[in-house]
Amino acid sequence: MRSIRPSPGAATSGALLGTALVLALTCATSAAQAQQSERGGGRAPLVLKEQGMFYLGGDIVHTDAANGPNGPTFLGKSGDIAINQMYVGFMLPQSEHGAPIILMHGGNLSGACYETTPDGRMGWYEYFARQGHAVYLPDQVSRARSGFNVTPFNEVAAGTRTPSELPNLLVLTKAASWEVFRFGPSLGTAFPGEQFPVEAIDELAKQSIPDQNAEFESPPGTNLTPTRLAALGVKIGGAVLMGHSESGFYPEQAALVDPTGLQGLISMEPATCNASTLAAGQIAKLAKIPTLVVFGDHLADVPTTSVNWPAALDDCQKYVDAINAAGGDATMLHLPDAGVFGNSHMLFQDKNNIQVGRMVLSWIDQHVGGKSHKS
Amino acid sequence: MRSIRPSPGAATSGALLGTALVLALTCATSAAQAQQSERGGGRAPLVLKEQGMFYLGGDIVHTDAANGPNGPTFLGKSGDIAINQMYVGFMLPQSEHGAPIILMHGGNLSGACYETTPDGRMGWYEYFARQGHAVYLPDQVSRARSGFNVTPFNEVAAGTRTPSELPNLLVLTKAASWEVFRFGPSLGTAFPGEQFPVEAIDELAKQSIPDQNAEFESPPGTNLTPTRLAALGVKIGGAVLMGHSESGFYPEQAALVDPTGLQGLISMEPATCNASTLAAGQIAKLAKIPTLVVFGDHLADVPTTSVNWPAALDDCQKYVDAINAAGGDATMLHLPDAGVFGNSHMLFQDKNNIQVGRMVLSWIDQHVGGKSHKS
Repeated sequence: MRSIRPSPGAATSGALLGTALVLALTCATSAAQAQQSERGGGRAPLVLKEQGMFYLGGDIVHTDAANGPNGPTFLGKSGDIAINQMYVGFMLPQSEHGAPIILMHGGNLSGACYETTPDGRMGWYEYFARQGHAVYLPDQVSRARSGFNVTPFNEVAAGTRTPSELPNLLVLTKAASWEVFRFGPSLGTAFPGEQFPVEAIDELAKQSIPDQNAEFESPPGTNLTPTRLAALGVKIGGAVLMGHSESGFYPEQAALVDPTGLQGLISMEPATCNASTLAAGQIAKLAKIPTLVVFGDHLADVPTTSVNWPAALDDCQKYVDAINAAGGDATMLHLPDAGVFGNSHMLFQDKNNIQVGRMVLSWIDQHVGGKSHKS
Repeated sequence: MRSIRPSPGAATSGALLGTALVLALTCATSAAQAQQSERGGGRAPLVLKEQGMFYLGGDIVHTDAANGPNGPTFLGKSGDIAINQMYVGFMLPQSEHGAPIILMHGGNLSGACYETTPDGRMGWYEYFARQGHAVYLPDQVSRARSGFNVTPFNEVAAGTRTPSELPNLLVLTKAASWEVFRFGPSLGTAFPGEQFPVEAIDELAKQSIPDQNAEFESPPGTNLTPTRLAALGVKIGGAVLMGHSESGFYPEQAALVDPTGLQGLISMEPATCNASTLAAGQIAKLAKIPTLVVFGDHLADVPTTSVNWPAALDDCQKYVDAINAAGGDATMLHLPDAGVFGNSHMLFQDKNNIQVGRMVLSWIDQHVGGKSHKS
């Protein structure tokens, strides 16, 4: 399955332009047949050494609101509970090649978004494991299988806290996701050549998990997920950390917390790369880790009132340039510039998700390397 | 791994007493070495045809509160969102033997509870797949990766709904779970011979997901999970449905909704089997499906003020008797009566979880059968 990978060393220098070109050449040729071979009945067995889950971090705290006023009384309301933990699912291939990969999901979603796609195809969680990578699939702190702190909710219900103190709960409407994720000009109308499987928009809506980050209002530092991701890299003993959208810049934030477990940083479609606010010392720290930034197509074809995608691309290009100027190895992969067209914000769910996934793995092989043929 | 299974037909009659006796004899002998062989480095590869997830059911509804008053404004508050969907993870073995199994978790938990145990051992999700069963792992509706409806929460935050209308959010305190799950007489003190890995109590606490069921107060019929489970059985094309604790009687509730996809019903430690309230017509309907009820040890050794376990056992024995009197095939497996001692309420996480899991699989083989050696 990796036969189309460029020969070793073909793109090890000239990271900025060279890699994009090589990726374009290697991926355009055999993308169609590769995409087909990953689907349907002809699939080879998935051979794992182990799979499972663990929780990372978390605090045991006392609460007097483990249950609300309308709940069953016999289980008690006061005692110690866990908060701030992070759920991490994982698959370890029997025959491991290349660096372990952490797949961090974005806003309003959970790790499920990297499993089967909304239209029922293989997602990157399984695909990367089939390509020999140990893959780790967390849910962000306070979301999905990571749970969340019930205390403020039950205190509002009990009247001991004001309603305005409720944590914000965000889900995206179908219309908002259609626009922000760049499926087309308006709900129900797709861009020509759009790669997102728009017929499965309702299945994408079902992946929505209430998002408590409210990150645009929160003071910096209140989001625990980057800290947990740094600790996850250390626990694994080294991994490539990938973020998307809301979590698009979490890899870099995690590396600023503790870079020791992070072998590579992949930022998929962050709304900003903070090029104008990072200090020189931070850039120098981040420049020690190979970095890939990925953007899809149609960046300028949706209103900029929700997310300004062209500005995000510009900002991240400045970030890539700053990392390289500091002696780092950063690559901007803007898919249309590499000859791959029609990708939405949800490029790991798009119809050509295996093609894009292979491009990401090629970058990892060339720029990170990692564990080789451990079995 | 299944070499200790009794010879075919050994317990096909006299289900009520015979099976328990056979299980006791077959399981007591080689339990220790079997448990050991399932753990640690000597594990064989897990060979899967496929794994992934899908969402089952769900409604697309309009809301004006997709986001709270403290959330980012640019994403919009009004539009269509999905509610009431159920997340279902799955693993399909490359070589499939026996009936597919649905593992439904209990209150305040998610499907994660059947993955790796709190002390890091293999859970039933992987164990059952290794034994050749297709295994399906849902999160209950309105919990974990199934998401939940943000509208009432954000309406309270916005002041358009009163705080008393907040859905109840329940988690168990460590002290409550210690008592209700029968780890020992009081938090920190285990029963002699206790099988739950009590040193991992904090890891169990991290598995807590806020539970909106408030089932003891809700009017019957408001819980959508049994309906989704019935639909899941149909989608799979037939499965054994297992419930635990809060969901202990969901298999029977699902069968009353639609029995066509349910080949076997397994109730682990329900608080009640509703023996006194089910009508004769309902018993007749349920008697068409083989049924196993499982209880652990120390039922009488914790206060009855939270859950009255001896009463639950009595009620479920009456239910088993009623099913058998109606011509059905129901088995009560009270583990101490089968020579297996020390099991907690969390018997699928206990230190002898593989031993108990094998007893459950033996029952499935003998009473349900299922797909044989499909590959």
